[in-house]
Amino acid sequence: MPERIALLGSTGSIGTQSLDIISRYPGKFIVEVLVAGNNVELLTRQALQFHPDSVVIVNEDHYLQLKNNLSHTDIKVYAGNDAMEQVVASSSVDVVIASIVGYSGLRPTIAAIKAGKKVALANKETLVVAGEIIGKLVRESGSRIIPVDSEHSAIFQCLVGESGNPVEKITLTASGGPFLNWSQEMLGKVKPSDARCNPNWDMGSKVTVDSASMMNKGLEVIEAKWLFDLSPEQISVVIHPQSVIHSLVHFADGSVKAQMGVPDMRLPILYALSYPERFSSDLPRLDFSDYPSLTFTLPDRKRFRNLGLAFDALRKGGNMPCVLNAANEIAVNAFLNEKVSFLQMPDIVEYTLDQSTYSQSPDLDFLNISDAEARKISTDYINKLQK
Amino acid sequence: MPERIALLGSTGSIGTQSLDIISRYPGKFIVEVLVAGNNVELLTRQALQFHPDSVVIVNEDHYLQLKNNLSHTDIKVYAGNDAMEQVVASSSVDVVIASIVGYSGLRPTIAAIKAGKKVALANKETLVVAGEIIGKLVRESGSRIIPVDSEHSAIFQCLVGESGNPVEKITLTASGGPFLNWSQEMLGKVKPSDARCNPNWDMGSKVTVDSASMMNKGLEVIEAKWLFDLSPEQISVVIHPQSVIHSLVHFADGSVKAQMGVPDMRLPILYALSYPERFSSDLPRLDFSDYPSLTFTLPDRKRFRNLGLAFDALRKGGNMPCVLNAANEIAVNAFLNEKVSFLQMPDIVEYTLDQSTYSQSPDLDFLNISDAEARKISTDYINKLQK
Repeated sequence: MPERIALLGSTGSIGTQSLDIISRYPGKFIVEVLVAGNNVELLTRQALQFHPDSVVIVNEDHYLQLKNNLSHTDIKVYAGNDAMEQVVASSSVDVVIASIVGYSGLRPTIAAIKAGKKVALANKETLVVAGEIIGKLVRESGSRIIPVDSEHSAIFQCLVGESGNPVEKITLTASGGPFLNWSQEMLGKVKPSDARCNPNWDMGSKVTVDSASMMNKGLEVIEAKWLFDLSPEQISVVIHPQSVIHSLVHFADGSVKAQMGVPDMRLPILYALSYPERFSSDLPRLDFSDYPSLTFTLPDRKRFRNLGLAFDALRKGGNMPCVLNAANEIAVNAFLNEKVSFLQMPDIVEYTLDQSTYSQSPDLDFLNISDAEARKISTDYINKLQK
Repeated sequence: MPERIALLGSTGSIGTQSLDIISRYPGKFIVEVLVAGNNVELLTRQALQFHPDSVVIVNEDHYLQLKNNLSHTDIKVYAGNDAMEQVVASSSVDVVIASIVGYSGLRPTIAAIKAGKKVALANKETLVVAGEIIGKLVRESGSRIIPVDSEHSAIFQCLVGESGNPVEKITLTASGGPFLNWSQEMLGKVKPSDARCNPNWDMGSKVTVDSASMMNKGLEVIEAKWLFDLSPEQISVVIHPQSVIHSLVHFADGSVKAQMGVPDMRLPILYALSYPERFSSDLPRLDFSDYPSLTFTLPDRKRFRNLGLAFDALRKGGNMPCVLNAANEIAVNAFLNEKVSFLQMPDIVEYTLDQSTYSQSPDLDFLNISDAEARKISTDYINKLQK
């Protein structure tokens, strides 16, 4: 039986690459639902190509246009957050690919987990913001999270067949981003256009800035804590500019497993969809003649302060990772709009972590409030900086 | 219940390291049988430390001395090949560590497999010489082979939990040995003392010469074929001088798994003994600060012809790997005794492969005859070379 897929964020980077993978295995997968935020044109083309049962456009302003575009088909057309959460939970869906970027990806992912779906998780915020709550929901509903992020997919793959074997620590690899060897002075002058180019991976602009500022890795550290039930001390980060070793598990016997591959997000997407099987593919192959040397250095936490801030937030726990994430979204947005400099982003995050109301065991409602508070604190701080 | 171990070759490199591991887990393992070839003194000390049920000295000339050394204990003392095969098959043995080096390790390993024991296999010749027959015996007896060699242990570890998933190929890593970057001219002048020093691993002198000449890797290619049911085309070799990635599996989806660790044979020994579990250990840990760069190059088959000869023997199949192994033992011995040069070793092997009687499906008796024939052809050839 083919797996019936609901794809949240179908017009984004992970969404389009997921459809690329799905199109390669016609007998294995059926696109049941496509969800996009705003991009009506691309969503229309995708719907006409994949003939889902339903499509949802989250921004209700685009509903009529989408409805009109698909009026000659029998595809059901919906709009808005509530519709998205309903179709995700539909009994005709087996797998939900959760690839809506940002805090807005949290709610539908939770809906999928509550409905007991297998979730291929690409949305970082789900676990960063609400990792503890999510863990509980997964246990209650019998859902299963398969990470799509290349680093977490690597850890997940290294742990296959090792159930019960003691893990000493994991190492997440980081490309180091485009500014790896830039001086502090040069980092002060980074422009948004500089940050948009990642050396190895093809990503959206928010993720690319996060990658350049190492916040991406900080968020991944937090996700890893919840995905693999680790303490902050069990998670390390190493700069590996070739992005060929996607991450490593260090077992307590002294043996280390690594998962490797060319930097291509379609590989972890395929794995998440085929797990526990692996499907043969003609995706690009790792060839050591292309990578005669793999290098490793420790991250410079002075120039890339976000990594330390993420570990701080993780150690403090409660709503602090939620605050970190909210402050960072505001900071990145301000940077992309040239309101703050590259090096001011960690200042904004640190200030917001200091000023936000702390709760040790927040529920989802508190997290929503905390998210809003952190965004306001960050925004006010940015406005102050500009005066 | 602790696992009861018969250790074949207890006084050799793998044997002593196995006892190091066993001594670290007193509740997990019991040494039931110790077997050594000639080293009575060390075998005596080991027997007094580990109190096995029985000890066997293969060379019967040493029986009386060993018997005398242990006369004040209740340890049973035996001598000879038949005794070794009998104690290996004893019902009080759960696991056999097969670490007798060379062709003479074949018979007791087969006895252990026939008795349905779990076999921690360090003896290369078992699979090189008789891989096809061994595979059949394992299936018939319900035995299980866990490789001890670091490369095969790596592949084995990477395949855990991947049952049924398609493997595209494996890559065995090779340190390249002490002569990796030596010119053809310099290789012609290598002395046995030069070859005895391996950059990363602590090994016996036969294995060290094999490592320097790359025959070691050739034999591992043949072993891998039988251990993991691969075609010769699915096995590749890459030079990785740091010996930190112990080998890799390339799955058909494009994902690659590697097993890594510091170069310390106790790690794969521990894994073979603890599998499918992993036991916490205080063995040395892999730290990227010690390995800032991992490098990979293709082996130079012109300077290291043995690798190509091993692939030729594997492709031709039948008794050819047996012939390769026998010729190599004679060649290495002649090199260690300064009868032939380093670069003459592959000449001897190639000549013997050409001159030996071929059989597509040899039984064990034929392999014994073929082994003897190959040794004679090699020896005669060496004598001719010396005239």
